[in-house]
Amino acid sequence: MSTGTITDPAPLDAADPLAAHRDLFVGAETPLVYFDGNSLGRPLRVTGPRLAAFVEQEWGGRLIRGWDERWFELPLTLGDRLGRACLGAAAGQTAIADSTTVLLYKTIRAALAARPGRTEIVLDRDQFPTDRYVAAGIAEETGATLRWIEVDTSAGVTPELLAEVVGEQTAVVLLNHVAYRSAWLADAPALTRIAHDAGALVIWDLCHSAGVVPVELDAWDVDLAVGCSYKYLNGGPGAPAFVYAAARLQDELRQPLQGWMGAADPFTMGPSYEPAPGMRRWLSGTPAVVGMLALEDMVDLLGEVGVEAVRAKSVGLTAYAAEVAAELLPEVAPASPTDPERRGGHLTLSHPAMREVTAALWRRDVIPDYRDPHGLRIGLSPLSTSYAEVRAGLDAVREVLDEVTA
Amino acid sequence: MSTGTITDPAPLDAADPLAAHRDLFVGAETPLVYFDGNSLGRPLRVTGPRLAAFVEQEWGGRLIRGWDERWFELPLTLGDRLGRACLGAAAGQTAIADSTTVLLYKTIRAALAARPGRTEIVLDRDQFPTDRYVAAGIAEETGATLRWIEVDTSAGVTPELLAEVVGEQTAVVLLNHVAYRSAWLADAPALTRIAHDAGALVIWDLCHSAGVVPVELDAWDVDLAVGCSYKYLNGGPGAPAFVYAAARLQDELRQPLQGWMGAADPFTMGPSYEPAPGMRRWLSGTPAVVGMLALEDMVDLLGEVGVEAVRAKSVGLTAYAAEVAAELLPEVAPASPTDPERRGGHLTLSHPAMREVTAALWRRDVIPDYRDPHGLRIGLSPLSTSYAEVRAGLDAVREVLDEVTA
Repeated sequence: MSTGTITDPAPLDAADPLAAHRDLFVGAETPLVYFDGNSLGRPLRVTGPRLAAFVEQEWGGRLIRGWDERWFELPLTLGDRLGRACLGAAAGQTAIADSTTVLLYKTIRAALAARPGRTEIVLDRDQFPTDRYVAAGIAEETGATLRWIEVDTSAGVTPELLAEVVGEQTAVVLLNHVAYRSAWLADAPALTRIAHDAGALVIWDLCHSAGVVPVELDAWDVDLAVGCSYKYLNGGPGAPAFVYAAARLQDELRQPLQGWMGAADPFTMGPSYEPAPGMRRWLSGTPAVVGMLALEDMVDLLGEVGVEAVRAKSVGLTAYAAEVAAELLPEVAPASPTDPERRGGHLTLSHPAMREVTAALWRRDVIPDYRDPHGLRIGLSPLSTSYAEVRAGLDAVREVLDEVTA
Repeated sequence: MSTGTITDPAPLDAADPLAAHRDLFVGAETPLVYFDGNSLGRPLRVTGPRLAAFVEQEWGGRLIRGWDERWFELPLTLGDRLGRACLGAAAGQTAIADSTTVLLYKTIRAALAARPGRTEIVLDRDQFPTDRYVAAGIAEETGATLRWIEVDTSAGVTPELLAEVVGEQTAVVLLNHVAYRSAWLADAPALTRIAHDAGALVIWDLCHSAGVVPVELDAWDVDLAVGCSYKYLNGGPGAPAFVYAAARLQDELRQPLQGWMGAADPFTMGPSYEPAPGMRRWLSGTPAVVGMLALEDMVDLLGEVGVEAVRAKSVGLTAYAAEVAAELLPEVAPASPTDPERRGGHLTLSHPAMREVTAALWRRDVIPDYRDPHGLRIGLSPLSTSYAEVRAGLDAVREVLDEVTA
């Protein structure tokens, strides 16, 4: 099926300095093509045995003592490690907790409360649904207004578009670092500056960038950020999310879900809630220790490899996928930026038959995602994906497109 | 150390129809005495290998397809199984999600919104801190008032005490089924009736009763309930919590954390949030699948054994512990009900030296919990605790009390 004019993946894999890492992941030995690492990353091989050992030794052996010994601090110590490995965040500004949705609720509410007299939440219509739904719920309950950025599909959310909508009524700007369908990569430092110039706080949703695109929250002067850990951070289905709050703002921000684990002294169990200093105040209930363990393994690996190296491979993979798709699938429209520097870790290909194509691909163990309208989304998790896998998957798309449009 | 006048545990263990179940738990073979199963239950032996197999086969093998095949429905299907096994809840009324704290926030907010014009949240000062902290935060943000039941330490929260404080301003009554320190077991059907007679909704926090005390949410006409799964449900540290909403109220109740997983059609990803029918609307973010697996194992076991049998053993264990303590520790004051029918699954013993005693017990691998003021809390998880363990632990308390008060 492949044609001679298309770049052979073999030399690319041979030259890939991260090629050997693929074998660290479960399933690397199978012929399955996984194009959905941006939805659910593969598990590391160490993770299964590690979970079993945790149950036997740490949970079963240390029992309640585990809280004093390690678990009580784990949301903050693992947050720090994640911040250092992937987020450009100095210690004391990142916590692991809840889900992205719950953390969006906390951060938006906290940001609104920190800008009294301002009434607008600025966001864009291409944002992931949960971001929009949470913001809409908060608008309804607080009387705030949603102010929409009209995204330019040929450029994503640009500084110019944001500058048009922010103003003296803007309390908070909520943005997605990498757009979940198109993969547009936002100019986070420039957009943050524009929000700040208008006197607003900014919240970055890093779900589609954490672990694959370098993020420099401290250097970019970001106020708040959230993200999930089950995509490029390989934390497993429904792993807890993370929240970043800049140190300079921590005393002034209060989130509304006041629980014992966010209290200044959880075990005094006193009559009234006093938020803990630092990041602990972002916690509410008992931390999801079992849920954090897989993430811990991947944060270790990312710390060793370095996100810059991961990004270099990611750009290589998406560029190769774009090149092969252009040659092999001329009737398919790319729905992602062509400039790799403006693109996150995935690539969306558009064609009216893509819903049907996705279903047919799944039946052959080629696993992309489908996103309305007409989008075949190819998420290439750099450490677990080879160039040969990209090529095999796109060959399969060619065959399946022929079948379903025949 | 033991005296001849105290009941020997051996015949009690020999006559215990659930005795063999203890070997199903990690650590049963060790001499460690675990008196904190009401804070963190021991893992089942099947859980470690099951987690490893999940990572290898289900997460690693099925990858994103796992969502369609099982995970998407798991919060509701496992909720149904938990409801049937332990909560007296017919299908379609229980979901696994978030943490107890987050679910308290959702249920209190939803209940307040369902009683417009009423301004009071009724609760008691002996409640677990997170319940009081969440309610206080909601009072602050909504303008609601907290109305306190002054608990009678010799009877817990009685129907008479509740009747005194509810009225036409009461929107919601929040109660703990078993008090976390004293172990008072509330008369849930009577208290629910009093709340309803006042026109209020009731929320039961079942953290200290689910899995150990029979609960009949449907029969008691309860409106809402929440609880954690890491105590007598052995879900592991930080396992997700559960929420019950009576079918008759589901359409009318709306929780404020609007996320994609609670939307009527999560994958349409449409412009606006429409809550799903039924229990799905109580979900917000991506369900914590990895975090639910251990709970699943214990729900299976509880379904086989039956909560009535578990309760019978629980009453036996706490009665035996009370008897032994009365004989062996005459200087210690029982801080829990003497009537086993009014007591949950734990027992608190009070003495000014108990903080120090707890630390010394831990050093000998006898693991109770300490709760201010002066409380040695003995949580006896029925399926994993033997009478001999109770006796050995109380013998150790005797020895340590002698040492620290010498």
